[in-house]
Amino acid sequence: MRVINTIHGLRAYLSSIREQRMTVGLVPTMGAFHEGHLALMRRSLENGDCTIVSLFVNPTQFGPKEDFEKYPRDFNRDSQLAADLGVHALFAPPASEMYPEGFQTNISLPKISSRYEGEIRPGHFDGVATVCAKLFNLVQPQRAYFGQKDYQQCVLIQRMVSDLNFNMEIVPVPTVREPDGLAMSSRNAFLSPEERTVAPDLYLALRQAAELAEQRERSAAAIKERAIHLLSEEPTIKVDYIEVADAESLEPCDLVDRSTVILGAIRLGSTRLIDNILLK
Amino acid sequence: MRVINTIHGLRAYLSSIREQRMTVGLVPTMGAFHEGHLALMRRSLENGDCTIVSLFVNPTQFGPKEDFEKYPRDFNRDSQLAADLGVHALFAPPASEMYPEGFQTNISLPKISSRYEGEIRPGHFDGVATVCAKLFNLVQPQRAYFGQKDYQQCVLIQRMVSDLNFNMEIVPVPTVREPDGLAMSSRNAFLSPEERTVAPDLYLALRQAAELAEQRERSAAAIKERAIHLLSEEPTIKVDYIEVADAESLEPCDLVDRSTVILGAIRLGSTRLIDNILLK
Repeated sequence: MRVINTIHGLRAYLSSIREQRMTVGLVPTMGAFHEGHLALMRRSLENGDCTIVSLFVNPTQFGPKEDFEKYPRDFNRDSQLAADLGVHALFAPPASEMYPEGFQTNISLPKISSRYEGEIRPGHFDGVATVCAKLFNLVQPQRAYFGQKDYQQCVLIQRMVSDLNFNMEIVPVPTVREPDGLAMSSRNAFLSPEERTVAPDLYLALRQAAELAEQRERSAAAIKERAIHLLSEEPTIKVDYIEVADAESLEPCDLVDRSTVILGAIRLGSTRLIDNILLK
Repeated sequence: MRVINTIHGLRAYLSSIREQRMTVGLVPTMGAFHEGHLALMRRSLENGDCTIVSLFVNPTQFGPKEDFEKYPRDFNRDSQLAADLGVHALFAPPASEMYPEGFQTNISLPKISSRYEGEIRPGHFDGVATVCAKLFNLVQPQRAYFGQKDYQQCVLIQRMVSDLNFNMEIVPVPTVREPDGLAMSSRNAFLSPEERTVAPDLYLALRQAAELAEQRERSAAAIKERAIHLLSEEPTIKVDYIEVADAESLEPCDLVDRSTVILGAIRLGSTRLIDNILLK
């Protein structure tokens, strides 16, 4: 596996890949790899792409009071995991390479970013959209792979790719879970042992709400209430939101009469966890 | 010359061009071609590129009180002029193709857009940056050609290309002028015969200011004053701004001690004219 730290090095590597007429798959990450990341990489490798994983803890998508400084970082472990899978190149630039002096361009998707994670984390999705646009232009992949765990991010990126006419496909990859249902997340490492035992409640609550919908309950309010009720029984959990939304636009729904998604976010101590279930 | 109206058609055309390993040059325009546009096309054709001209009067870069509706349009004439030069393809999409329902992505460069044209035309440069990013992704040219007459736009686009890592070169092309010095502009067509006789004063004023700088005057205030004084003698001219700015960042300068640009904008009746001179 090639480890590349500069834009110049990345472009040189890609030009040799393109001469061999290989297709290119991109897996954008912030490192701290878990099985969710590895599933993205495996999916790209299965698709036959030359797989490029980017590893960049992007400062612009963290708010001033968020966990940028303490976000987990372990380059040697991540690099070994990617290499063992057969990833072709790991692009791990320093921040100065991505945001040189004078940098000022910002990409925003105001409708998608106004709700849920975007409402709670102002500026977060601008940071995500902008860094992904940079990575898409740098790598010019045929496909980029994103985890469905970050459902709103998937919708945002798909909308941006469509709006800005990036000539590529976004491949959403199903959430990978711990045996007890907790969605894999780099932030799970922040949970205390007590918080970790309670954390699967988010998925269990969404699962119960989804089951209600599968039993033909069409009222979004009733579906949300099922999840909120279960979560309210655990005093250490603070619910940020539970919402039933159109799966494509993310507009909240009153009735489940099309493709919808149940989105949820909770706080456990200082850790935020998010999850979602798609209703067909 | 191929006339293409859909994104699908453009992508199909470009894929055949790329199979022939031709480089691609893009000339983004809003039509109403004059010698300035033709100079961009000639430059691209000289560079040996397969030259694609886009013709799209982009609604998002016009303010609600601006001249979108009355902006000059003559597709047949434009198409003939481009074909006569040897342009390979003219991409002229309808607005519904560029901005389908649900479109929401916006690109902004807040520092560059806060001044001069951006201050007077709020949202203008967001519209320009966003549509150019779309065109760059659609055409994926090796080079795109822009007129130096719109100096601030050139700086904006170069900054965006650098910030978002578009893998292409922006080629600024010197302003083409009428024999009396007036910069070619599609909006010159709006000038009454009386206004047309006064219009070259903008360039003459910038020219006199530049000559002062060439005579080693280093005070930006003195240089600006020279231009403003000349323009103030013509009562039908309203000066929007005259500014001496760093040629790269566009920050206003107090002293001319590096590469700077003198920027000017005036109103003649309901028509706005802009122009600039680079100081070496």
